This record gives sequence, C-alpha cells and structure tokens, in this order.
Amino acid sequence: MSLVEETLDNLSIELPSWAFGNSGTRFKVFSTPGTPRTVQEKIADAATVHRLTGSAPTVALHIPWDAVDDYRSLGAYAEDLGVRLGTVNSNTFQDDDYKFGSLTHVDKKVRQKAIDHHLGCIEVMNETGSRDLKVWLADGTNYPGQGDIRGRQDRLAESLATIYQHIGVGQRLVLEYKFFEPATYMTDVPDWGTSYAHVSALGERAMVCLDTGHHAPGTNIEFIVAQLLRLRKLGSFDFNSRFYADDDLIVGAADPFQLFRIMFEVVRGGGLDPNSGVALMLDQCHNVEAKIPGQIRSVLNVQEMTARAALVDTGALTEAQESGDVLAANAVFMDAFYTDVRPALARRRAEHGLPEDPMAAFTRSGYQQQIETERVGGTPSSWGA
Amino acid sequence: MSLVEETLDNLSIELPSWAFGNSGTRFKVFSTPGTPRTVQEKIADAATVHRLTGSAPTVALHIPWDAVDDYRSLGAYAEDLGVRLGTVNSNTFQDDDYKFGSLTHVDKKVRQKAIDHHLGCIEVMNETGSRDLKVWLADGTNYPGQGDIRGRQDRLAESLATIYQHIGVGQRLVLEYKFFEPATYMTDVPDWGTSYAHVSALGERAMVCLDTGHHAPGTNIEFIVAQLLRLRKLGSFDFNSRFYADDDLIVGAADPFQLFRIMFEVVRGGGLDPNSGVALMLDQCHNVEAKIPGQIRSVLNVQEMTARAALVDTGALTEAQESGDVLAANAVFMDAFYTDVRPALARRRAEHGLPEDPMAAFTRSGYQQQIETERVGGTPSSWGA
Amino acid sequence: MSLVEETLDNLSIELPSWAFGNSGTRFKVFSTPGTPRTVQEKIADAATVHRLTGSAPTVALHIPWDAVDDYRSLGAYAEDLGVRLGTVNSNTFQDDDYKFGSLTHVDKKVRQKAIDHHLGCIEVMNETGSRDLKVWLADGTNYPGQGDIRGRQDRLAESLATIYQHIGVGQRLVLEYKFFEPATYMTDVPDWGTSYAHVSALGERAMVCLDTGHHAPGTNIEFIVAQLLRLRKLGSFDFNSRFYADDDLIVGAADPFQLFRIMFEVVRGGGLDPNSGVALMLDQCHNVEAKIPGQIRSVLNVQEMTARAALVDTGALTEAQESGDVLAANAVFMDAFYTDVRPALARRRAEHGLPEDPMAAFTRSGYQQQIETERVGGTPSSWGA
Amino acid sequence: MSLVEETLDNLSIELPSWAFGNSGTRFKVFSTPGTPRTVQEKIADAATVHRLTGSAPTVALHIPWDAVDDYRSLGAYAEDLGVRLGTVNSNTFQDDDYKFGSLTHVDKKVRQKAIDHHLGCIEVMNETGSRDLKVWLADGTNYPGQGDIRGRQDRLAESLATIYQHIGVGQRLVLEYKFFEPATYMTDVPDWGTSYAHVSALGERAMVCLDTGHHAPGTNIEFIVAQLLRLRKLGSFDFNSRFYADDDLIVGAADPFQLFRIMFEVVRGGGLDPNSGVALMLDQCHNVEAKIPGQIRSVLNVQEMTARAALVDTGALTEAQESGDVLAANAVFMDAFYTDVRPALARRRAEHGLPEDPMAAFTRSGYQQQIETERVGGTPSSWGA
Repeated sequence: MSLVEETLDNLSIELPSWAFGNSGTRFKVFSTPGTPRTVQEKIADAATVHRLTGSAPTVALHIPWDAVDDYRSLGAYAEDLGVRLGTVNSNTFQDDDYKFGSLTHVDKKVRQKAIDHHLGCIEVMNETGSRDLKVWLADGTNYPGQGDIRGRQDRLAESLATIYQHIGVGQRLVLEYKFFEPATYMTDVPDWGTSYAHVSALGERAMVCLDTGHHAPGTNIEFIVAQLLRLRKLGSFDFNSRFYADDDLIVGAADPFQLFRIMFEVVRGGGLDPNSGVALMLDQCHNVEAKIPGQIRSVLNVQEMTARAALVDTGALTEAQESGDVLAANAVFMDAFYTDVRPALARRRAEHGLPEDPMAAFTRSGYQQQIETERVGGTPSSWGA
Repeated sequence: MSLVEETLDNLSIELPSWAFGNSGTRFKVFSTPGTPRTVQEKIADAATVHRLTGSAPTVALHIPWDAVDDYRSLGAYAEDLGVRLGTVNSNTFQDDDYKFGSLTHVDKKVRQKAIDHHLGCIEVMNETGSRDLKVWLADGTNYPGQGDIRGRQDRLAESLATIYQHIGVGQRLVLEYKFFEPATYMTDVPDWGTSYAHVSALGERAMVCLDTGHHAPGTNIEFIVAQLLRLRKLGSFDFNSRFYADDDLIVGAADPFQLFRIMFEVVRGGGLDPNSGVALMLDQCHNVEAKIPGQIRSVLNVQEMTARAALVDTGALTEAQESGDVLAANAVFMDAFYTDVRPALARRRAEHGLPEDPMAAFTRSGYQQQIETERVGGTPSSWGA
Repeated sequence: MSLVEETLDNLSIELPSWAFGNSGTRFKVFSTPGTPRTVQEKIADAATVHRLTGSAPTVALHIPWDAVDDYRSLGAYAEDLGVRLGTVNSNTFQDDDYKFGSLTHVDKKVRQKAIDHHLGCIEVMNETGSRDLKVWLADGTNYPGQGDIRGRQDRLAESLATIYQHIGVGQRLVLEYKFFEPATYMTDVPDWGTSYAHVSALGERAMVCLDTGHHAPGTNIEFIVAQLLRLRKLGSFDFNSRFYADDDLIVGAADPFQLFRIMFEVVRGGGLDPNSGVALMLDQCHNVEAKIPGQIRSVLNVQEMTARAALVDTGALTEAQESGDVLAANAVFMDAFYTDVRPALARRRAEHGLPEDPMAAFTRSGYQQQIETERVGGTPSSWGA
Repeated sequence: MSLVEETLDNLSIELPSWAFGNSGTRFKVFSTPGTPRTVQEKIADAATVHRLTGSAPTVALHIPWDAVDDYRSLGAYAEDLGVRLGTVNSNTFQDDDYKFGSLTHVDKKVRQKAIDHHLGCIEVMNETGSRDLKVWLADGTNYPGQGDIRGRQDRLAESLATIYQHIGVGQRLVLEYKFFEPATYMTDVPDWGTSYAHVSALGERAMVCLDTGHHAPGTNIEFIVAQLLRLRKLGSFDFNSRFYADDDLIVGAADPFQLFRIMFEVVRGGGLDPNSGVALMLDQCHNVEAKIPGQIRSVLNVQEMTARAALVDTGALTEAQESGDVLAANAVFMDAFYTDVRPALARRRAEHGLPEDPMAAFTRSGYQQQIETERVGGTPSSWGA
C-alpha cells in the first residue's frame, strides 16, 4: 500500500466556511443549535474537523459573508487553531443590483461594481496569503430573449480580463461553471468548455473549477477531469454529490462509484502530485444533517475513495485494456473499488496520532454540546449573511 | 372556429394568490415595489388579471400564508372585486416539526399535527365554498437510508385516509406529485403512479394533481394527461414551465409546443367539458419578471394554446393516423400549432367587452403605479409568510 | 451472517437465452467466435453459468427466436444439463406488420395477429411448464400527432384482456414498461403507473415487470420497487445497468450502489421470500464483452449486492431513522455497502461444492475454446433470428 | 421583410445521401418500396428535394457507403440533376477492427488504418471539390476501466494531427461531438469543449460540428451556437431533433421553439453571412415516415424557422433587454416565433418559380410511384452498405 500511502500523504481537502452555517432550499432553511455566528466560529468548527481527520488543513472564505476588518488577525486566529485560510470566494449574487447579472450586466456601472468586488477579494487574498480567487457567477437569464447571449459573453470576457490584471504572481483566478440554477434558461458559464475558453484567453494563472454537482444528467465527469488535467487547466474541485440537481449532498453519498472514478482520473492525471496545483475543496449544504459530522464524513469519503483509486493495479489494468479484454479490465478496476480500505485507513490514522474513527471521536469529544451551550444569542450564519 | 369558441368558453384558469408575492431561489429573493402585503391585496391583483382577460375568475389560497379570521368576509371581498375563492392549498413544509416529514413522519404527534392542519384547511373550504383541497407534500429524504421508504408509504396512506374522511360531499382531495425538491434522494409522492395508487385507495373524491414542472427530464407529460383522463383521475393542473428543474416559469414559456400537446390531450380527453371537473390552475414564480403581467401573459398563453389545440382538424388527423401516413398526421397536428390565433383571440376579446391586448391594457391602466404608491410599509408577501 | 445465508439461499437468477447470442447497436453488431446457432446451444451456455455459480437454474425463452417444434424435448434437454426453462418472452416488434404497433394497432387484423402470437406463447408455456408470460411492447409513436394516445391505450387494454383470459391458473402475465426506444416520442407503456393501471384492471395474475434500464434520468428505482411490493404487483425484474439510455450493460456495472439500494428494498419488502413470486431475471446485451463471462459476472454482482443488502443492521437503521439522525442512518446503510463480502461468498461457494471464483473457473474450464472449435458454420444467433 | 429576404437568400441546406436509404433501430429496420440501391439513386432523390424547395443544392456523401470508382463522373451526374456533391463523411465504425476504437485505438495498426481511411476521404474531396471532411467517431468505451481515457485523448490528438496535415488549402476538417451512443460509458469526443480543444490545437482549418441531437438532456444548444460563433469555430451543423436520445427525427419536429432559438443565434452571430463558412446539413433517420417527403419537410422547417428568427425586431429586443424588462424582451422574441410565415414563404416560392407547397407538389409529381416501379431488385441502401 505504498502508492496508496504516498497518494494519501498528498491528499489535502479544503473546507468551506459556509458549510458550518445554515443552508436550505427555497422552501425552508432549518436551523440547528450551535450554528456559528461569526467567521471565527466557523473556523473553529473547521479546525475541529482537521484535528480529527488530519486532512483538512485549510478553510475557504466567502466574501462578504466572512468579511472582517483585519484579515491578518483572522489568519493568525486560524493558525492558532491549526488551520490556514485558503481560497477566497466572491459573491455577486445577493445584491439587488445583480438581478440581471454582474460581470455580464448591460450596465457598465453594475459591471464595475462587480469587478471592484473581485478586486476587493484580491486584496483579501493579499492579506491572507490565499492563492486562489474563485469566481462563481449566478449570471444568466430565465427567459428566452431576456438577454443577448453573445453580448453577455463579450462583456464577461472583458470583465474577467480586467480582474485578471490584478491577479498576483503567486495567485490564480479559478472560474467555476454551472449548468443551471439560479438562472433557469441560460447560465453565462454553463459548461467546462465555456470556462476553458475564457481562462485560456486570460492566461496561465487562470484555471477551471469543476464542481461535481454542476453538470447535466448523465455527464461523464471523470472524462472532464481527465481532459482538463491533460489541457493543464484543472484548477480546483468543488466536491459534493447529487441525485438530480445541484443537491450539494455529502461528496460520495449519491454515487460512491462515481467519486472513485473521479479520484482515479485525478491520480492518473497527476492531480495529486505535489506540484499539480489542483485544489480539492468541499462545497456542500448540510440542510438536514449535522454540519460538523457532515464535513468529517465528507473528508473520510474522499480519503477512502482516493485510497481505493490508488489501489487499482494499473499494470494489470493496462494489460487488460491493451488486449481488448473488457471484462478483465473492468474487473481490475472494480476490485479496487470493492476493497474495504477502512480498516487500513483506521490503522494509518492511529499511526499518525489521529482517532481511528473520527466520527465517533467527534461524538465523544463533547464539542457539539459545548458549542450548543456557548453559542446562544446572535444570528446564526447562513447564506444570507 | 365554433369548436374553438365552445372550447374557449369552457376555459377558466385559477390564479394562485402566492404568484403576486415575492419568490426566489435559495440564493436570493428579489423584491419589487407594489408587492401585496395581505391576502386582500393579492386578491385585488388577481381580480385585475381577470378584469383584463375574462378568463381567471378564481383565486387559490395557501394556508397559512393567506389565513384570515373571517373567510366569509374574504369571500365577499373577492366577489366585490369580481372573483371567487378557489382551491385551498395546505402547507406542511415550513414548520420546524416537519424537518423529517409531515403526513409520513415517524412520530405520530407530528403526523397528527399535519393531519390537523389539513382538517383546518377543510374548515376553510367549508367557509369559502371551495371544492378542492390540494395536498402537496415536501416529505422525502435527502440521503439513502435516512428513512424507510416502505414505512413512509404506509403512514402516508393512513394519514390521507384520515383526512379523506373529512372531505365533504361536494369536495375533493387532490394529491400532487413531484419528482424531486426540496428532498433530494426521494420524495414520498414522486410520480403520477404513486398519486394514482393513493387516490384510488381513498375513493371517488380523491384525484391526482399534475404539476407540469414536476417530472423527470424527457417525460411525455401529455401521455400522463391522456392516461389520467382515461382513468377518470385527473383532478387538476398546476401550470408552469421549466427548462431543467421545477423552474416555475410562465406556462408555455419554455416549450410552447409541449403546452399545445398537453392542451390537445385535455380537449381530446374531455378535460374542458363542463362536467369534467378538471381544474386548471397556474403555479408559478415570477422571480425576475413583473408579477401581474406575468400572470396575464400566462393566462393568454393557455388561451392561445387551447385555441390552437381546438383548431386541430381531428377528422383529417384520424384519417392520416389510420392510414399510417406519419407525415400527414404530423402535418395536420403542426398546422394547428403554427396557426397564428392571436388576431382572432383579440377580436373575440373585443366582442366580449375585454381589451384586445390585455398586456398593453394593463400598462395603460396605471394599476402598477397605483399599487407602488399605495403599498408602502408593511411586509411584502412571500413564501415566508 | 445467518440472515445473509437465508437470503442467499432464496436467491435465484434467471438467464435470458438471447444474452448468449450476438447483439449490438443500430451502428454495428460485432460477432464473436463460439456464438450459439441454436436454442440448444444457448441453453448449454446458460447451464454452464449455472454449473459455475449455482444461482442461475432457469433460462428464459424468447419466441420466435427460440421457437422449436417440440418444447417438451427442449425442456428435457435443459434438465439434462441441470437447468429448467423459465419465462416466455413474446416478440411483436420484428414483423413488418407491426411498424405502427401490435396490441395497440389501429387495424384489428394486426391486433389479432399480435394477440394470437401471445396465445401461441401461452401454449409454449403449457408445454414447458413456464409460469410467466412476459409482455414487452415496442408499440409507440415517433412524431406528435402520429397516433391517438388515448385510443391506443383503450385498444391495449382490450388486447391484454383477451390474452389474459387464456392465462392459466398457475400462470401469470407480466407487463413490462419502458420509457423510450425504439419509439422516440411516446411509448404505449412508458412507466410503472401505466403498467400498474393495466395489470390492476386485468386481475390477480397480472403483474408489473421492472426493467432497471427503462426509466427517465434520475428516477429513484428502489422507490418503485418498494411501492410495487407494497401494492403486491411486482412480478419480475429485468436486470441490467445503464449510464444514459437503455444501455443493457452488466447489472451493477454502471452504479453498484443503486443495485445495492434496489436489493435492499427487495429484501425489505419480502421480495426474496419463498412465496413472493418475484422473478429476478437478467436482460442484457454483451456487445463488446465476452458473453458467458458477462453472464457469470452479472450473477455474481447480484449475489454480492444481495449479500451486502442483507448485511444492513436493520435494528440500528430503524433506531437511527426514528431518532432523526440522518448521518447515523446513512452510516449504517453505507457500512453494509462498503463491506467486502467477496471472501465470505467464495467460502460459501466452496461449501456448496462450487468454484470459489466462477470467472476464473470458466477460463480454466476450456469451455470457450471448445465452443469456438465446435460451433463452426451456421448462423450465429442474434436479435434477428 | 427585407432582412428576412436576404437571410433566406443566404440559406442553403445540405442533404445527407443516407437519409434516402433505410435506417432503423437495434430492434428493426423497416424497408420501403422505392428505396435507392445506389448512390446515383440517392442523388436523384436529393435532387428532387432541391427541385421542389430550391434550398438544398448539395448532397453529402458517406464513405464507404457512397464509394464509387469515378467521383468526377459522379459529380457530373449530380450537376446534370441540378445539385452538387458536398461534405464527405468518414466511417470508422463498421469494420470489425474498430470494435475498440479507430483514431483512438491502442493498436497503432488500427489507428493507421483509420487514418488512411480519412486520407482516402480527402482524396475523394479532391476529386469532388468538396470543402469539408466531417469526422464523427463512434470511439468510446462501454465499461469503466475498459479504456484509458487520457491515453485515448492523446492518441486522438496525434491521429487528427496526421490527418490535418493532408487537409488542403481550401478544405476543412470538421470534428463532430456526441454525448453518447454507440458507446455507453464514455465517448472520446463527448462535448463541444473537447471538439473545440482538439480543433484549436489543429489549426485554422479545423472546426467544430454541432449535431443538434448529441447533447445531454436540458442542454442549452443555442448557447453553444453563440459561443462557437464567437470563438470562430462553428464549422457546421447536423440538424435533426430528438425527445430523449439521438432520435434523429425531422429537424424542428420535437421542439420547434428550440430550432427557432438556434436559428436566431445563427443569424445573430453572422452564421448565415456569405463568408461565415457555417454549413447547415441535415442528418436524420426516417425510420417510420416517408423519406423524400421527410427531407422536404425538414428543409421547410429550417426555412420557416429561419424566417421567424429573421423577423425578430432586434431594435425593440435590445431596448427591452437593456431596460431589464424581461416580459417585454420575451414578448418581442415570441412575437416573431408565433408569426405564421408560411403564406409569405409560399408567395416567395412562387416568385422564384417554385411550387408554393413543395410537399403537395411532391405527391402530385408521381416521383414516388415512379421509383417504386423502377427500383425493383437489388439491395436497398442502408447503414449496412
């Protein structure tokens, strides 16, 4: 299990600060006791996940949800808890001005406002030492004829170019795509091809972000992973899982085999190599399940599937593939998937001074009871703020 | 155009009170000036739509969003404005108790609470003279294993049976189905088959409600319409349109030809016959477009597609179908669809003392300016209340 | 593992004779050496699968592909090889007369021809002792307007009723549904609701057949399994798997977790109880992979997933479900799925005198080389004949 | 209607020779009397479509289905009938060698064979004066693990580069993408992004081919049209329509509004400008409908939708878009769609000396009776040869 060891050593999963806050659907947001009121409390929860799993050393911020006056202090606070601040995510979808678009808006003033927001995010990155600016846009239209598809693309290209000029030498702009939602008829960055065309035009420090929940039904996601790694344009992942739409469920929950196939292509394409630059991040909504354990479970799922993926006997696989033996090739592949890696991972954790069962360790820790007791009053964090 | 005339005379479209309030996505709810603060203001808006179109004589209520102390007064208020109160829609998805289900909940107390809510709705119906209790459930689960699929069905059947016992002689229980959302893994009434099985078990006054946005991609909705009419179990429609999920766009906006095919099967199956009992209702969310004109446009879309559907030369169609002439049959069908019925409908409106162009008439009326001026202060209605 | 033992003891998988013949797509049918030329050779291949797995004791016939003069001799031949003849599948999709339908055709003569074909199949059943007549119809239309949806349903009901009158006391009519293909616009039995409505009208010996590849994208198949078991109308399965359309891949190959969830509901709903009457059949196309090993792999996949499903700690699951602990319930469920049951199943096989690894045993057996040598000349079996 | 006039003058639709031959599904190919036996007879049928519509001046060839010894004679034959030979389509999916791929195959010999086939196609182009070599690949895999996704991409790139070296100055290589089928797990060119990445790497004379039936459910195709025109990489269309899979129905039959939106973006992006280089081709299968009228209907559908698209009042549309008036913008758009352009197009045909109703003119012409009488004996053309 040495390749597995090396692969797991390289595995590092970024947690999104907002996963610890409340989230929901257009029908209802259910709140839970202990929900963080501040970015500091979100970071504390994230640090707890890292303490128990050893694999989640960074926390992504969402601006303005996580805006503070002093980011250096925030960074120091995080480091005191054993984690670092990571990707900065922009937000141009919750201001009334953005009803009809942000970076694509017909009104130059609105576009400039959205551009300025991103420049502000870059300033945050300069303070926090973050490498990645992640741009996900809610831009799109709900009705045919509502907007000029072509004109919106041109304005998007122009806005992105302006932002990109401010991306520092060690920094990257990562452009996420999404098939639909909140826009219903057309989103302005609906597929990897569109993101790829834009980041290729921008330059070397612009990359694609692949959110596993943002595709049409039936899309072969691992193909896109392989293709983007081949084109050297896979910047980062937003991990989650889905049955139908952008369900934002725990990664691996809906289709574990798909996660296995994705991780196999990540390993195959060098995406876990130390210098690959591929960031693995969670982006999930724990609407009905407990949030901190939801994040722990997610980290474990990625870990377990990465171990399975690394277990594939690539020599035997190649041999079967080259001889046209479909069933043998598939069997080699499935053998790794069906192998129960959990005992070995538990031992590995023990060797690293981590709890063998992080889920059980969290329950035993009393952390949940503690935050339910302490976090009384104030406004629980959510997408609203 | 005499069949068309007769068909259009029978056409009556119910408006949902909530379409006049704010709605949105999990990302953002945009508000607009003039949004109603009360059920009375919603009814006033609906009455405006009816005054301009002549085809929307009833307004559906949503309880508790539209709860008032005195429903007889509310009915009188509506009649003063020229409309009547229609279907009563229950709501068991916004109370914290319903996080894990309502009529299907494992806890008998929660189930009883949900049953009692429906009995309360029946009392509202008794006051308002409404015929239909519409039951749409958000019940479902997000993760495999979260609930016992079979047990939930059994509890659902029991809860519905209890409610059905209180349905009066001239009343009906109408059970809506939905493929997904807000639940992501499983909804408890996901398809027409499930709704049909339950209402068949209940009795003659239980019917299926078909929401045009609640199906899997690629589903042939007009087939379901034809089948339910054949089985005498089509109770009502919730009209809207969608490109991907339950987008709740203006009916006919996403796929006008689909609406044509649906209305053709409604006419074919006798769904517009005076005694058919099929209720046609809108159920839409005007997230980015103006609300009252959005409803007017919807009524016009249904009217226009019904006219086109009634124009199909069924004699020629049958002849082509029976002779196996695929292209001739399709041509007869498409000829009706491609006919521009708008001038004839405008003339028809003039003959009935209605504005030829209800959209333009609304703009000219100054109604929007008036409500924007008058409706200041208070809380704009939304799904939240 | 005693529940698992009992469950596996009850597990019996029927093989389709046509899986051993050539199949393909509209683009190309690739042939392979050793393909059977006769039904006898298909049965010999099926018997080989049973000899190696111990779980596939019956072979389904397809008429007229497998038509012979003397079915009693054919049955004796099968029994000599250690298997029995099972379900009889009708075929009304390869005769020019059926271009526009069979049991639904507008022409009474064509309908009668299709009915007579089914009566012929019942006679075959009388000879072979088969219990089930499986009816899958290619009936449908490609263009809107091509056929009268409602009229086709009425004719279907009438035709089925005529056939059902000839179904003997110990026999059943099983009606399969399919979302699309070969018809593109509408199939006449597109969903379980339609099949359910028809078989309910027919009587107690009419049941629904669920083919796992015949649903819209995103459909929760295990829900349908649970529902049909609850309604006592699940007659049989056609097992296969798919990524996009009706791919007819090896069961469990595309989404092993889905197969696990389906088998869990089968067990949960009593579908493996000796008296349940639920028939588990494969229905697959081995277009690019070896056929006999493809069937062995399929039997093993069903066996392994059934073992995993039976491993679910239902006591712990219920407790977690009833306490609303989503993650705990999901964890109990996933723990069974992630358990590697293969070593235990290998031991179990050895205890039953079967090869521990049926795939390897087939390779070692020399059977493939033997049939490649012997089956020279003649016409390889395929869907064509 | 002057813009419309100009737009229609620029509209030219290429017919596929194979649409006149038999086609079908994996279940059955129905044959029809009068089906061509030779490429000459296919061209004669295509010329008939052009004679009646005036808009289909070229015929695409498929090699080897349409292979002849003397292409110059074939070209002269076509010109005598009033049409020209157009795009050359390669075929690497019907030879046993290609079971596991062609340009992507692991075996260098098979790749070379597939490359050589394309070089042969270029020689045909040199003879016929064709501009475009269209490459559609059936390459892909059916099972996870069967092939190395990344390695296949690399080999594909290398093979394409070799072919591209032989593309002449006035010639183009057009690479088609397809979501699925015949491969079920992965196709090697599944989406426009992959095709775009490859043709961008090849050079200026390599372009993307967009087949309207080759997308995931819910894909916004007009967005891709707008994007590819913006990127100057839209080479050609394969027009058809679909409800579920790659149904290859008559263009516009399944969703006329979608065809309208596509043609609007084509016009908007300059795709009908004389120098745009965008080729509009049909690629359909008339499985149950008459073939020549099927092609006539298709040409008319494209014509009618182009006229509607050109009718959009772009000034009013832009104004509504820029003012954020969603309903007004949508109304401008829909007004053009709902306008019945058929009478004006009939007049236009009469002015050009064409029959007002090409469908009726075909019926009157007696052409079908003639070919049914003359084309007796021989083998009807089909995908097989």
